[in-house]
Amino acid sequence: MNRQFRLAHRPVGAAKETDWDLVTELVPSPGDGEFVVQIQQLSLDPAMRGWMNAGRSYVPPVEVGAVMRAYATGTVVVSRHPDFPVGELVTGEFGVQEYALSDGRGVRRIDRQLPVSASAYLGVLGLTGLTAYFGLLDVGQFQPGQTVVVTGAAGAVGSTVGQLAKLQGGRVVGIAGGAEKCHYLVHELGFDAAIDYKSENIRQALRTHAPYGADVFFDNVGGDILNDGLLRLAQRARVVLCGAVSQYNSTTGAQGPDNYLALLIARARMEGFVVTDYEDRYDEAIEALARWITDGALIAAEDIIRDSILAFPKTLARLFAGENTGKLILELEGAA
Amino acid sequence: MNRQFRLAHRPVGAAKETDWDLVTELVPSPGDGEFVVQIQQLSLDPAMRGWMNAGRSYVPPVEVGAVMRAYATGTVVVSRHPDFPVGELVTGEFGVQEYALSDGRGVRRIDRQLPVSASAYLGVLGLTGLTAYFGLLDVGQFQPGQTVVVTGAAGAVGSTVGQLAKLQGGRVVGIAGGAEKCHYLVHELGFDAAIDYKSENIRQALRTHAPYGADVFFDNVGGDILNDGLLRLAQRARVVLCGAVSQYNSTTGAQGPDNYLALLIARARMEGFVVTDYEDRYDEAIEALARWITDGALIAAEDIIRDSILAFPKTLARLFAGENTGKLILELEGAA
Repeated sequence: MNRQFRLAHRPVGAAKETDWDLVTELVPSPGDGEFVVQIQQLSLDPAMRGWMNAGRSYVPPVEVGAVMRAYATGTVVVSRHPDFPVGELVTGEFGVQEYALSDGRGVRRIDRQLPVSASAYLGVLGLTGLTAYFGLLDVGQFQPGQTVVVTGAAGAVGSTVGQLAKLQGGRVVGIAGGAEKCHYLVHELGFDAAIDYKSENIRQALRTHAPYGADVFFDNVGGDILNDGLLRLAQRARVVLCGAVSQYNSTTGAQGPDNYLALLIARARMEGFVVTDYEDRYDEAIEALARWITDGALIAAEDIIRDSILAFPKTLARLFAGENTGKLILELEGAA
Repeated sequence: MNRQFRLAHRPVGAAKETDWDLVTELVPSPGDGEFVVQIQQLSLDPAMRGWMNAGRSYVPPVEVGAVMRAYATGTVVVSRHPDFPVGELVTGEFGVQEYALSDGRGVRRIDRQLPVSASAYLGVLGLTGLTAYFGLLDVGQFQPGQTVVVTGAAGAVGSTVGQLAKLQGGRVVGIAGGAEKCHYLVHELGFDAAIDYKSENIRQALRTHAPYGADVFFDNVGGDILNDGLLRLAQRARVVLCGAVSQYNSTTGAQGPDNYLALLIARARMEGFVVTDYEDRYDEAIEALARWITDGALIAAEDIIRDSILAFPKTLARLFAGENTGKLILELEGAA
């Protein structure tokens, strides 16, 4: 049997247990050119909250009644597709369920030769790593010697952004919630400094740790942290808008940065991007990221919860509560 | 005697009559290398409100007790400077007064051969025109065929931005306050459409007049108009932050654009600039602007108030009330 979470209601504010229908159906049978994947690891991403809303943003919403969208890894267990034989380890947009039917579109094979875990394909070698790479280097126009301030710094994208900037000769200041995360950023990931937004005054701390201002302000959180950061931009700074996880559950809409006119004084820009626009350059990025991972220069920070699929709703809530460090993954027990 | 307005207090909210000291002193006597200008026209600019605040933005504030900063035109009436003989018509940062002492630094001679009025040097051939030119073409990266939406469109910068975009093959939509201004934009300046923010729903009107969204959103006003505009950006749009006249008198600080995440969906950027950064390219711009003015292709929209210097405070208030159309100038009676 295949257990799956379907969207029951569009949530108001944070997603609740009652916004989901847990449905059990027969494991699908593949037709010609199809195969079935037994899902091992589900990726939990801030973007999920946006997918649950009505209205298209840069991807269509998940329809009410449909299986929740999710990236995942898994193993082919039944196949009528020549390129995806039984036993193949794959990653794709398989949804929040135990088994997925696929025709192979958008599915990547996981290279077992690389000394990286399959979960890396959901994180540093997946959209997370690609988002960090193109956001920092292309949108952020980062150059060696510059100062990068990254918010949501202990999260999947943030931890990768900071490490990439360090690898390329930057000064890196992370903003994260809690002493433990901050210790991790500095002592495990090699950030120059970390600011605990739960206990520190961000503006003062930025004055200390980024005395010349941020050349790149890479924002994953929005809200007051972005607003404070705008007052500490270097001249011609780039504010990279990657996300706004502090705002996604708001019932009154997002809160704009009141200090936006700081962009004028600093001759700075704030720019949004969508990683899928860089699809024709994914290979370049994945090659670089895989090399750094293999060399041990880049740590694929992961927060793996081992539980049944029933834990999906509460694991998703962890993400918006800021409880994870690194890429949040739900690894399905018994499926590996 | 020389009457002048000095800053008495830093205003809270809008500048009031009591924020000024009207001082009468002797007309200064020039030393060697100095000259005295009798001021004819004072330029009234939204930036003046910022200059009255404490704290440096991109220029230092006007000190309490100092003559208020203002750009002006005038005639040299006494001179001990070889390059600025009596009778020369000049423009510079002469301040809100009837006579100014100068050593020539930052002073430009007005070319009487050009078929443009001296006041044009405060507007379309001055910082106003330069701001429009570099903001649209350089920061805004405007290209022929693109749609430009400009706010504060009947103001000095806005009216120039719209005309420049029309001259170079753009579709131009102006947002301004009142039917009269909107009629002027379309029927006198050749805008494709104008939206009256006082009587129209901006989002709906933009859907009608900019059906493919704004490639360049040139913002002079901030507040709700900017916020609405962010929802009507074309993909890869550029939001040019030139000013925020709706916010300068706020006592609670500026209001940020809550819809800023629209930048992410549109892969758009919002960028601030300061025209004086382009100083080494002023000649290129002034040459182009003067040619268009001479050809009659560009109208130097001006709103000239003829009165004594005593009218300065109430003329400045006109600017923030949105009562002017085009460049607001106080022309001193009896000084021309």
